[in-house]
Amino acid sequence: MKLGTIERPDGARVVVAVSDDHVALLPSGYSDLADMLGGPEAEWRRAAEVAVSSGERLRTADLSWLPPVRRPPKILCVALNNSANPDRILSGPDTPAMFVKPSSSLIGHGKPIIVKDKYGRVHPEPELAVIIGTGGADIPLEDALGHVFGYTIINDITSPTMRDHDTFHYRAIHPDPDNPDGVRHVESWVSYPARYKGADTFGPLGPWVTTADAIADPHALRITCTHDDRLVTDDNTANLRFSVSEIISFASGYLTLEPGDVIAMGTALKSSAKGGAVQNVDLTRLGGTIEVSIEQIGVLSNPVEHR
Amino acid sequence: MKLGTIERPDGARVVVAVSDDHVALLPSGYSDLADMLGGPEAEWRRAAEVAVSSGERLRTADLSWLPPVRRPPKILCVALNNSANPDRILSGPDTPAMFVKPSSSLIGHGKPIIVKDKYGRVHPEPELAVIIGTGGADIPLEDALGHVFGYTIINDITSPTMRDHDTFHYRAIHPDPDNPDGVRHVESWVSYPARYKGADTFGPLGPWVTTADAIADPHALRITCTHDDRLVTDDNTANLRFSVSEIISFASGYLTLEPGDVIAMGTALKSSAKGGAVQNVDLTRLGGTIEVSIEQIGVLSNPVEHR
Repeated sequence: MKLGTIERPDGARVVVAVSDDHVALLPSGYSDLADMLGGPEAEWRRAAEVAVSSGERLRTADLSWLPPVRRPPKILCVALNNSANPDRILSGPDTPAMFVKPSSSLIGHGKPIIVKDKYGRVHPEPELAVIIGTGGADIPLEDALGHVFGYTIINDITSPTMRDHDTFHYRAIHPDPDNPDGVRHVESWVSYPARYKGADTFGPLGPWVTTADAIADPHALRITCTHDDRLVTDDNTANLRFSVSEIISFASGYLTLEPGDVIAMGTALKSSAKGGAVQNVDLTRLGGTIEVSIEQIGVLSNPVEHR
Repeated sequence: MKLGTIERPDGARVVVAVSDDHVALLPSGYSDLADMLGGPEAEWRRAAEVAVSSGERLRTADLSWLPPVRRPPKILCVALNNSANPDRILSGPDTPAMFVKPSSSLIGHGKPIIVKDKYGRVHPEPELAVIIGTGGADIPLEDALGHVFGYTIINDITSPTMRDHDTFHYRAIHPDPDNPDGVRHVESWVSYPARYKGADTFGPLGPWVTTADAIADPHALRITCTHDDRLVTDDNTANLRFSVSEIISFASGYLTLEPGDVIAMGTALKSSAKGGAVQNVDLTRLGGTIEVSIEQIGVLSNPVEHR
């Protein structure tokens, strides 16, 4: 089953795909995918089935999309989670490293990614995203996939210029091991992602959430990124370094997962055979349209608007 | 006016301070400070005034506190924002650097900060926090304070062990300036704060929000941090590097601010005359109780629980 959230003159509504070209509208009680996550599965499945059999039909091409979950409690993003990354890592953790993207950065399919000169370079990052259905803490590895409601697409828009700008080389204060009240300075690096990952419109999400039961293996999905129809990335979720189960289990050992949380699984990295990389696609300079496509989920397309 | 959010057997409620020892309960329509931010000021002021004159009285000592805003749309935290920091900075931005803390990390006054051996070292960071009333983007400096609903206290609990663990030294992919499809590798450092700043209970917040009209100057407030009654930090918000107005104006140029957003203004740093620093207070090893106090706002106290 494929579900999404759209905006209509009378408010937001959940839709279910009935064909490549058409969707069916769920009742007005479902104004966001979050409304499904709160209720028992049998109930929202029945609502979606009734919609498929008798709900109002709309042409997919006419829809105005919202992020499928408009206000995730948190958007947890995994960094450098591709099997091609370790070659470039001189030192780093052997466990998933993560940051939080604010929900104010989310936009729906078709909505513009706004770039400004002051952002410097801005590039796309095509990623598989997990929507958490049932929350939990300390989730065992073997139970992890049971917490997944479905899978969607995120374009984890990034400004490497702001990343470099918001990085400190500094002397961190550490306790002095020889004196309980003493401190010593340790030369360190630290970087802060609120701007470079969290600026407005830096989180295109959707349009579709494919429910977990409809994806046999989330680690066998082709993922591509195109800029103005030119293939930039051609990868497969098989190349994720840490799996969906590993991320859910690890993350929930520190941060309680909640219904509607989004986990961005990390950038698909393998370049297309024609060369180039997402880092070559500077949206601030080039504009254009960015599409991210994941097998069995759909296509997330957003034009770039320079302001 | 000082406001807070408490939990009662029949649900959460907003309270207003009537004396040092007592609060008055607002009507059940106010179950979170966020309910006030959504409505016109005249309306919530009247509700609070009616509560003061005729609402049910409760003893402050008996209350079970929640974070005043339980689900801020975002919690934006400013890093290294103290006038004592630049001495330690070898290179870094000349603008505010920020990260996002997830709302799942928030706890109320009196609730335990949970530490685990796997977190490594964990220390408190006493900070002034701003609650945004009216949202906005690209807010001019001179209008910034008009967007503040009030001021509260955050203890921005931090694990330097997880910070160091989740730091990469790596070769970042940059575009090759001489070849539009070429890339080159640039040795870089990047760190990811989801665990070290965002673990469960790493965000004690409250208990009180002092409304903006009641604080003549947010940059003239003594701020202290004690561990088991021993003074660790004795600073003043006068030592903030970037002011509340500067942070609001700068941040809103990138991330739209929304009603209920929390901005943590950065760690008060000046050690007490007795020496030591927050970094010496390893909560994982020492346990105890941490109190953060800010003049005209109140005292945020949380016991540490080792699990």
